[in-house]
Amino acid sequence: MTENADEKFMKEAIKQAKEAMAKGEVPIGAVIVYEDRIIARACNMVETLNDATAHAEMLAFTSASQEAGKYLNQCTLYVTLEPCPMCLGAAFWTQIRRIVFGASDNRNIIANKNDILHPKTIVQGGVMENECSQLIKDFFKSKR
Amino acid sequence: MTENADEKFMKEAIKQAKEAMAKGEVPIGAVIVYEDRIIARACNMVETLNDATAHAEMLAFTSASQEAGKYLNQCTLYVTLEPCPMCLGAAFWTQIRRIVFGASDNRNIIANKNDILHPKTIVQGGVMENECSQLIKDFFKSKR
Repeated sequence: MTENADEKFMKEAIKQAKEAMAKGEVPIGAVIVYEDRIIARACNMVETLNDATAHAEMLAFTSASQEAGKYLNQCTLYVTLEPCPMCLGAAFWTQIRRIVFGASDNRNIIANKNDILHPKTIVQGGVMENECSQLIKDFFKSKR
Repeated sequence: MTENADEKFMKEAIKQAKEAMAKGEVPIGAVIVYEDRIIARACNMVETLNDATAHAEMLAFTSASQEAGKYLNQCTLYVTLEPCPMCLGAAFWTQIRRIVFGASDNRNIIANKNDILHPKTIVQGGVMENECSQLIKDFFKSKR
Protein backbone atom coordinates (compact mmCIF):
# COMPACT_ATOMS: atom_id res chain seq x y z
CA MET A 1 0.00 0.00 0.00
CA THR A 2 1.45 3.35 -0.95
CA GLU A 3 1.67 6.06 1.62
CA ASN A 4 -0.59 8.96 0.87
CA ALA A 5 0.58 12.58 0.87
CA ASP A 6 -1.17 13.44 4.13
CA GLU A 7 0.64 10.64 5.95
CA LYS A 8 3.93 11.61 4.38
CA PHE A 9 3.66 15.18 5.65
CA MET A 10 2.21 14.16 9.03
CA LYS A 11 5.35 12.04 9.53
CA GLU A 12 7.36 15.23 9.11
CA ALA A 13 5.17 16.94 11.72
CA ILE A 14 5.78 13.96 14.02
CA LYS A 15 9.54 14.45 13.56
CA GLN A 16 9.06 18.00 14.80
CA ALA A 17 7.02 16.72 17.77
CA LYS A 18 9.93 14.43 18.64
CA GLU A 19 12.27 17.41 18.53
CA ALA A 20 9.97 19.17 20.99
CA MET A 21 10.08 16.08 23.23
CA ALA A 22 13.89 16.12 23.14
CA LYS A 23 13.78 19.73 24.42
CA GLY A 24 11.47 18.75 27.29
CA GLU A 25 8.47 20.33 25.57
CA VAL A 26 5.03 18.78 25.19
CA PRO A 27 5.60 16.91 21.91
CA ILE A 28 3.60 18.77 19.29
CA GLY A 29 4.94 19.47 15.82
CA ALA A 30 3.77 21.15 12.65
CA VAL A 31 4.75 21.62 9.03
CA ILE A 32 3.24 23.82 6.34
CA VAL A 33 3.14 22.61 2.76
CA TYR A 34 2.87 24.63 -0.44
CA GLU A 35 2.68 22.86 -3.80
CA ASP A 36 3.82 19.54 -2.32
CA ARG A 37 6.85 21.17 -0.68
CA ILE A 38 7.44 21.85 3.02
CA ILE A 39 7.98 25.60 3.49
CA ALA A 40 7.93 25.69 7.31
CA ARG A 41 8.69 23.28 10.15
CA ALA A 42 8.19 24.08 13.82
CA CYS A 43 7.73 22.43 17.16
CA ASN A 44 6.16 23.55 20.40
CA MET A 45 8.62 25.96 22.06
CA VAL A 46 6.63 27.22 25.06
CA GLU A 47 9.27 26.29 27.64
CA THR A 48 12.31 26.98 25.49
CA LEU A 49 11.13 30.49 24.61
CA ASN A 50 9.38 31.03 27.96
CA ASP A 51 6.34 32.13 25.96
CA ALA A 52 2.91 30.54 26.46
CA THR A 53 1.93 31.49 22.92
CA ALA A 54 4.84 29.71 21.21
CA HIS A 55 2.77 26.82 19.87
CA ALA A 56 4.10 24.83 16.92
CA GLU A 57 1.37 26.17 14.64
CA MET A 58 2.04 29.83 15.52
CA LEU A 59 5.76 29.47 14.83
CA ALA A 60 5.00 27.60 11.60
CA PHE A 61 2.58 30.31 10.39
CA THR A 62 5.13 33.04 11.00
CA SER A 63 7.86 31.04 9.30
CA ALA A 64 5.69 30.11 6.30
CA SER A 65 4.70 33.74 5.79
CA GLN A 66 8.34 34.63 5.16
CA GLU A 67 8.25 32.19 2.24
CA ALA A 68 4.70 32.32 0.89
CA GLY A 69 3.50 35.77 1.98
CA LYS A 70 1.05 36.66 4.69
CA TYR A 71 -1.83 34.77 3.11
CA LEU A 72 -1.35 31.01 3.14
CA ASN A 73 -4.47 30.29 1.10
CA GLN A 74 -2.58 27.84 -1.10
CA CYS A 75 -1.02 26.01 1.84
CA THR A 76 -1.83 23.09 4.13
CA LEU A 77 -0.94 22.95 7.83
CA TYR A 78 -0.10 19.52 9.22
CA VAL A 79 -0.08 19.41 13.01
CA THR A 80 0.12 16.43 15.36
CA LEU A 81 -2.57 17.75 17.77
CA GLU A 82 -5.89 19.43 17.04
CA PRO A 83 -5.28 23.22 17.15
CA CYS A 84 -6.44 25.33 20.10
CA PRO A 85 -8.58 28.48 19.67
CA MET A 86 -5.49 30.73 19.47
CA CYS A 87 -4.04 28.69 16.62
CA LEU A 88 -7.41 28.48 14.85
CA GLY A 89 -7.73 32.24 15.20
CA ALA A 90 -4.27 32.60 13.67
CA ALA A 91 -5.29 30.18 10.89
CA PHE A 92 -8.23 32.48 10.20
CA TRP A 93 -5.95 35.46 9.60
CA THR A 94 -3.62 33.45 7.36
CA GLN A 95 -6.62 32.13 5.39
CA ILE A 96 -4.86 28.78 5.25
CA ARG A 97 -6.50 26.47 2.74
CA ARG A 98 -6.44 23.25 4.73
CA ILE A 99 -5.63 22.00 8.23
CA VAL A 100 -4.78 18.33 8.79
CA PHE A 101 -4.32 17.22 12.38
CA GLY A 102 -3.42 13.94 14.05
CA ALA A 103 -4.74 13.46 17.60
CA SER A 104 -7.92 15.09 18.84
CA ASP A 105 -7.67 17.46 21.79
CA ASN A 106 -10.22 16.55 24.44
CA ARG A 107 -9.59 19.76 26.33
CA ASN A 108 -11.80 21.61 23.87
CA ILE A 109 -12.59 24.79 25.69
CA ILE A 110 -15.12 26.21 23.31
CA ALA A 111 -18.25 24.70 21.91
CA ASN A 112 -17.64 25.08 18.22
CA LYS A 113 -14.09 25.63 17.04
CA ASN A 114 -15.32 25.95 13.46
CA ASP A 115 -16.83 29.32 14.33
CA ILE A 116 -13.30 30.69 14.52
CA LEU A 117 -12.04 29.42 11.17
CA HIS A 118 -12.10 31.13 7.81
CA PRO A 119 -15.12 29.77 5.89
CA LYS A 120 -12.86 28.52 3.09
CA THR A 121 -10.56 26.50 5.37
CA ILE A 122 -11.03 22.74 5.27
CA VAL A 123 -10.18 20.73 8.41
CA GLN A 124 -9.44 17.04 8.60
CA GLY A 125 -8.48 15.15 11.76
CA GLY A 126 -7.31 11.65 12.61
CA VAL A 127 -4.32 11.34 10.26
CA MET A 128 -1.82 9.04 12.05
CA GLU A 129 -3.87 9.70 15.17
CA ASN A 130 -2.43 6.82 17.20
CA GLU A 131 1.20 7.81 16.68
CA CYS A 132 0.44 11.45 17.45
CA SER A 133 -1.52 10.78 20.63
CA GLN A 134 0.91 8.11 21.84
CA LEU A 135 3.76 10.64 21.79
CA ILE A 136 1.83 12.95 24.09
CA LYS A 137 0.75 10.11 26.39
CA ASP A 138 4.35 8.91 26.66
CA PHE A 139 5.51 12.44 27.48
CA PHE A 140 3.06 12.90 30.35
CA LYS A 141 3.74 9.36 31.63
CA SER A 142 7.46 10.21 31.81
CA LYS A 143 6.63 13.33 33.85
CA ARG A 144 4.74 11.43 36.57
CA MET B 1 -10.76 65.52 37.47
CA THR B 2 -7.79 63.22 37.84
CA GLU B 3 -7.00 60.75 35.14
CA ASN B 4 -7.48 57.18 36.26
CA ALA B 5 -4.86 54.48 35.78
CA ASP B 6 -6.77 52.77 32.97
CA GLU B 7 -6.86 55.97 30.94
CA LYS B 8 -3.20 56.62 31.64
CA PHE B 9 -2.18 53.25 30.26
CA MET B 10 -4.67 53.36 27.39
CA LYS B 11 -3.00 56.59 26.29
CA GLU B 12 0.25 54.64 26.04
CA ALA B 13 -1.51 52.00 23.93
CA ILE B 14 -2.84 54.82 21.71
CA LYS B 15 0.75 56.05 21.25
CA GLN B 16 1.58 52.58 19.97
CA ALA B 17 -1.44 52.68 17.65
CA LYS B 18 -0.12 55.96 16.23
CA GLU B 19 3.24 54.30 15.64
CA ALA B 20 1.43 51.59 13.69
CA MET B 21 -0.34 54.30 11.66
CA ALA B 22 3.01 55.93 10.85
CA LYS B 23 4.19 52.58 9.43
CA GLY B 24 1.08 52.28 7.26
CA GLU B 25 -0.43 49.63 9.53
CA VAL B 26 -4.01 49.53 10.79
CA PRO B 27 -3.55 51.66 13.94
CA ILE B 28 -3.84 49.25 16.86
CA GLY B 29 -1.57 49.40 19.86
CA ALA B 30 -1.10 47.54 23.13
CA VAL B 31 0.81 47.77 26.37
CA ILE B 32 1.10 45.27 29.23
CA VAL B 33 1.32 46.52 32.79
CA TYR B 34 2.70 44.76 35.85
CA GLU B 35 2.54 46.45 39.24
CA ASP B 36 1.75 49.84 37.73
CA ARG B 37 4.70 49.61 35.34
CA ILE B 38 4.65 49.06 31.56
CA ILE B 39 6.65 45.91 30.78
CA ALA B 40 5.74 45.59 27.08
CA ARG B 41 4.69 47.93 24.28
CA ALA B 42 3.75 46.79 20.80
CA CYS B 43 1.84 47.90 17.75
CA ASN B 44 0.21 46.02 14.92
CA MET B 45 3.01 44.83 12.59
CA VAL B 46 1.11 42.67 10.08
CA GLU B 47 2.38 44.52 7.00
CA THR B 48 5.84 45.36 8.33
CA LEU B 49 6.55 41.75 9.28
CA ASN B 50 4.49 40.31 6.42
CA ASP B 51 2.80 38.09 9.01
CA ALA B 52 -0.98 38.00 9.40
CA THR B 53 -0.59 36.90 13.03
CA ALA B 54 1.56 39.87 14.11
CA HIS B 55 -1.19 41.64 16.03
CA ALA B 56 -0.20 44.17 18.71
CA GLU B 57 -1.45 41.89 21.48
CA MET B 58 0.53 38.85 20.27
CA LEU B 59 3.75 40.85 20.07
CA ALA B 60 3.04 42.37 23.51
CA PHE B 61 2.40 38.95 25.09
CA THR B 62 5.68 37.57 23.76
CA SER B 63 7.56 40.66 24.87
CA ALA B 64 5.98 40.72 28.35
CA SER B 65 6.82 37.05 28.88
CA GLN B 66 10.51 37.87 28.58
CA GLU B 67 10.08 40.19 31.56
CA ALA B 68 7.37 38.59 33.71
CA GLY B 69 7.57 34.91 32.75
CA LYS B 70 5.22 32.89 30.65
CA TYR B 71 2.23 33.42 32.95
CA LEU B 72 0.98 36.99 33.00
CA ASN B 73 -1.55 36.39 35.77
CA GLN B 74 -0.47 39.53 37.60
CA CYS B 75 -0.60 41.69 34.47
CA THR B 76 -3.12 43.82 32.60
CA LEU B 77 -3.28 44.14 28.82
CA TYR B 78 -4.37 47.52 27.45
CA VAL B 79 -5.29 47.42 23.78
CA THR B 80 -6.96 50.03 21.61
CA LEU B 81 -9.28 47.56 19.82
CA GLU B 82 -11.25 44.63 21.22
CA PRO B 83 -9.09 41.50 20.76
CA CYS B 84 -9.87 38.93 18.07
CA PRO B 85 -10.27 35.19 18.82
CA MET B 86 -6.55 34.54 18.15
CA CYS B 87 -5.51 37.14 20.69
CA LEU B 88 -8.12 35.97 23.21
CA GLY B 89 -6.83 32.43 22.75
CA ALA B 90 -3.31 33.71 23.40
CA ALA B 91 -4.59 35.57 26.47
CA PHE B 92 -5.99 32.26 27.71
CA TRP B 93 -2.57 30.62 27.58
CA THR B 94 -0.88 33.56 29.32
CA GLN B 95 -3.60 33.54 32.01
CA ILE B 96 -3.52 37.33 31.91
CA ARG B 97 -5.38 38.83 34.86
CA ARG B 98 -7.19 41.64 33.10
CA ILE B 99 -7.85 42.92 29.58
CA VAL B 100 -8.86 46.55 29.04
CA PHE B 101 -9.79 47.55 25.51
CA GLY B 102 -10.83 50.79 23.85
CA ALA B 103 -13.00 50.46 20.76
CA SER B 104 -15.35 47.52 20.20
CA ASP B 105 -14.79 45.33 17.16
CA ASN B 106 -18.01 44.90 15.25
CA ARG B 107 -16.52 42.19 13.08
CA ASN B 108 -17.06 39.69 15.89
CA ILE B 109 -16.75 36.40 14.12
CA ILE B 110 -17.81 34.14 16.95
CA ALA B 111 -20.86 34.23 19.12
CA ASN B 112 -19.26 34.35 22.53
CA LYS B 113 -15.67 35.47 22.81
CA ASN B 114 -15.75 34.85 26.56
CA ASP B 115 -15.79 31.11 25.88
CA ILE B 116 -12.16 31.41 24.80
CA LEU B 117 -10.85 33.28 27.82
CA HIS B 118 -9.37 31.91 31.00
CA PRO B 119 -12.13 31.91 33.67
CA LYS B 120 -10.06 34.18 35.91
CA THR B 121 -9.49 36.87 33.25
CA ILE B 122 -11.54 40.05 33.67
CA VAL B 123 -12.41 42.04 30.54
CA GLN B 124 -13.42 45.67 30.37
CA GLY B 125 -14.15 47.61 27.20
CA GLY B 126 -14.87 51.21 26.30
CA VAL B 127 -11.87 52.94 27.87
CA MET B 128 -11.12 55.99 25.68
CA GLU B 129 -13.35 54.34 23.11
CA ASN B 130 -13.83 57.44 20.95
CA GLU B 131 -10.13 58.18 20.56
CA CYS B 132 -9.37 54.53 19.79
CA SER B 133 -12.12 54.10 17.20
CA GLN B 134 -11.46 57.50 15.60
CA LEU B 135 -7.87 56.47 14.84
CA ILE B 136 -9.07 53.42 12.94
CA LYS B 137 -11.79 55.36 11.12
CA ASP B 138 -9.26 58.01 10.08
CA PHE B 139 -6.91 55.31 8.82
CA PHE B 140 -9.50 53.68 6.59
CA LYS B 141 -10.76 57.05 5.40
CA SER B 142 -7.19 57.93 4.30
CA LYS B 143 -7.04 54.67 2.32
CA ARG B 144 -10.14 55.38 0.25
